[in-house]
Amino acid sequence: MKAKNIKSKDKHILNLADIVGGASSILYQKEDLLAYDCDGFTIHRHLPKAVVFPKDTQEVADVVKYCAENDLPFLARGAGTGLSGGAIPLNGEIIISMVRMKKLISVDLENRRAVVEPGFVNLKLTNSISDKGYYYAPDPSSQYCCTIGGNVAENAGGAHCLKYGVTTNHILGLEVVMPNGEIIEIGKDGIPDAPGYDLLGLITGSEGTLGIVTKITVRILKNPEGKQTVLAYFDNVEDGSQAVSDIISAGIVPAALEMMDKTAIEGVEAAAFPVGHPKDIEAVLLIEVDGIAAGIDEQIEQILEVCRMRNVREVRAARNEEERARWWANRKTGFGAMGAISPDYLVQDGVIPRSKLPEVLRRINQISEESGLRIANIFHAGDGNLHPLVLFDARIPGESERALEAGSLCLKVCADVGGTITGEHGVGIEKREEMRFVFTEDEIAAQTEIREVFNPRNLLNAGKLFPSPSRCVEIKKEMKAQAIS
Amino acid sequence: MKAKNIKSKDKHILNLADIVGGASSILYQKEDLLAYDCDGFTIHRHLPKAVVFPKDTQEVADVVKYCAENDLPFLARGAGTGLSGGAIPLNGEIIISMVRMKKLISVDLENRRAVVEPGFVNLKLTNSISDKGYYYAPDPSSQYCCTIGGNVAENAGGAHCLKYGVTTNHILGLEVVMPNGEIIEIGKDGIPDAPGYDLLGLITGSEGTLGIVTKITVRILKNPEGKQTVLAYFDNVEDGSQAVSDIISAGIVPAALEMMDKTAIEGVEAAAFPVGHPKDIEAVLLIEVDGIAAGIDEQIEQILEVCRMRNVREVRAARNEEERARWWANRKTGFGAMGAISPDYLVQDGVIPRSKLPEVLRRINQISEESGLRIANIFHAGDGNLHPLVLFDARIPGESERALEAGSLCLKVCADVGGTITGEHGVGIEKREEMRFVFTEDEIAAQTEIREVFNPRNLLNAGKLFPSPSRCVEIKKEMKAQAIS
Repeated sequence: MKAKNIKSKDKHILNLADIVGGASSILYQKEDLLAYDCDGFTIHRHLPKAVVFPKDTQEVADVVKYCAENDLPFLARGAGTGLSGGAIPLNGEIIISMVRMKKLISVDLENRRAVVEPGFVNLKLTNSISDKGYYYAPDPSSQYCCTIGGNVAENAGGAHCLKYGVTTNHILGLEVVMPNGEIIEIGKDGIPDAPGYDLLGLITGSEGTLGIVTKITVRILKNPEGKQTVLAYFDNVEDGSQAVSDIISAGIVPAALEMMDKTAIEGVEAAAFPVGHPKDIEAVLLIEVDGIAAGIDEQIEQILEVCRMRNVREVRAARNEEERARWWANRKTGFGAMGAISPDYLVQDGVIPRSKLPEVLRRINQISEESGLRIANIFHAGDGNLHPLVLFDARIPGESERALEAGSLCLKVCADVGGTITGEHGVGIEKREEMRFVFTEDEIAAQTEIREVFNPRNLLNAGKLFPSPSRCVEIKKEMKAQAIS
Repeated sequence: MKAKNIKSKDKHILNLADIVGGASSILYQKEDLLAYDCDGFTIHRHLPKAVVFPKDTQEVADVVKYCAENDLPFLARGAGTGLSGGAIPLNGEIIISMVRMKKLISVDLENRRAVVEPGFVNLKLTNSISDKGYYYAPDPSSQYCCTIGGNVAENAGGAHCLKYGVTTNHILGLEVVMPNGEIIEIGKDGIPDAPGYDLLGLITGSEGTLGIVTKITVRILKNPEGKQTVLAYFDNVEDGSQAVSDIISAGIVPAALEMMDKTAIEGVEAAAFPVGHPKDIEAVLLIEVDGIAAGIDEQIEQILEVCRMRNVREVRAARNEEERARWWANRKTGFGAMGAISPDYLVQDGVIPRSKLPEVLRRINQISEESGLRIANIFHAGDGNLHPLVLFDARIPGESERALEAGSLCLKVCADVGGTITGEHGVGIEKREEMRFVFTEDEIAAQTEIREVFNPRNLLNAGKLFPSPSRCVEIKKEMKAQAIS
């Protein structure tokens, strides 16, 4: 009995402490649990029953088995930087924190892959291999602290996913603890395109509802030979967004193609990493090109030609790596920067066909006017992944609700033009009902049935990702049961 | 009643004829059905009950519903070029042929996507958009006749998948008729990274066991600005395969990096498209580089430098597009070319980590010596996707069996070095038992359970993809049933 310093009489707390190695590996008192009642998406707050800190896969499996045998809801948590509530314990879950499973297990440069534990921080991987000329491509703005396990759960994106793809395009293998405690390995040894069903793709982006990832084989890339970054300033948003559409139509794939509008610029310039954007411009594009050194200048020239056709006012090229890094810090801390110009903000995440960018930005502007709330736009323009930031003041009665409604309306606009309701932040708690904007009842049912296969008793991260089952789904189930019998 | 010219009293034949529009849209007499008893993988032969030719999604759905209501097994078939038996009717299926659903529905250059019906031939897509400077990347060797629907079922690869990825990396949306006749749409309007589970990835490569794809949205790419193709000849296989490994390790990603060994060269030079490879060399690499024109020469020079380090004997650069096309014809008709030097051949398809190439080729050579059968190697070396071609004579008693065994041993070698048992040809009938080389019982069970969700009565393409359920799976199911009850 290792649980000797536990100040609880709850037998589950005592038994779980035993499994993970004692009092130093479990939190169960309310003051400790308060740090775990939310994630980066802070509107909902729910306390877990306890938080355990397993040190390896076997301990995770043992905790899961214990939970399954004792009907205790549970879920996994990485750094807690998620933006849709995926790690929030809606049902008094046992939180299985992955922060102690943070090893870089191996790097195989010859076959371009690395194996990490889920608690390993995203940016640390690039930092560990950059001296040898390699890096890990998916770069969410939270990469300095978010974990690769969390990235897998949310299929995280990032600024450079325009050229290099999102997390799922870089995952070669996973070790997963299933909701019954079984350990399975998929995509063994990092061979892509394994036979059988694509479980790798299915688990990646399943928002922690199908299993708990305990080991990850990722693809690593060779650093591009050359890189150039430019800022392009536009006097109106229409020209800027048309330039984005034109660049892609011209067949150029920049490594990154980011956009910020006037309100966003006001925020980032008032925060920690101002870069001196002109105060009176309506839109800035941050464009990065990489690849073979010989082709960089030509690509930049093509891009600038497109910008000139769209009346660009001014263009700046990064003079050195330091300047480039500062521009990226200015962009990547953009969400938080809204705190400098608004007491509260709500970030949304929708995707649209790139050609609809000018139209959608106009409609978001209308939503802003109608709601009486400012909306800033900082986003991955090149892949049509919008991030409207609704600015509000929670102290003003009714303003939180109006902000939520404005956010939801922005997603509706995305869905209406043939887009979808999340590009990289996930559905979680936040967008369960908005799933109906893009899926029929049948399509939602097909997905919830898959969840039932993996997670038949619904103890793992219940209540996330899908709207509450409707009568239609129930009827379908009954019909199916009759058909089988 | 449209089925007036039907020479059958079978009520199902009559009813199915009615659904698809009459006698011209159904085959049911033995002499007609003989053309449908196999696919590109010809060892197994089984007759269907009938073949129907629906003209649109609704007819597919109606046929499927009829089959489901009447307990008739069914499956979909494209051009029948598959190499693992996926379209072979093991259970007297109704074959739903997609050859009349062959429209190019739309092309959207601005957002880089096209929508096709499943019977649309792969190469026709590139041919339809090449004048505007675009192409469709996945290029299986059968691309002049195989259908995109079949490519989706098998997650087809091709020579250029080294740089551009396999079919699943180019599929943005699918319309699918589920095994109960429901029609669902996934990845609507071609937005990648949709919320919810990755059904797009799950269906792609599921070898026709989860649903029937009736509409496909694919990504199209802008033609690269420049392209160069070289042949590099080596006096020994070891040097050639080490050069492959070195090129990739050097951080170069050619558009294609193909290899043929001496036996393969003998075959392709004796067949329809000889190109004058030296007769005494042991290995040839076909290397293609594409991208921004300015970078091509530099990349080729880097590659040749690596080849020189590995004692390349001779290098040839394609002098014009005609020569380049002929080299590719020589390579892409390579499997069939074996017919010029052997009465029969069996093609295998395994994947290995690239760094194991020299070791695995040695071991395949041993298998050849021990079996007394020649084995030719023509393969996608750059992504470690091997195609050992076992040459044999079916008229010699016992030789077919030895060929099958030698093929299976080649796959075992791939699995043993950390690879897997198929890169692009699928599992189908051929490799059901070899699935055990790479999956545990639990891992196979997780997949068969997913099949049950989509296909609970197992009428759709039964008996494919997975080994027969073992006692272990049965026990697991019983335990689960108890746990739920």
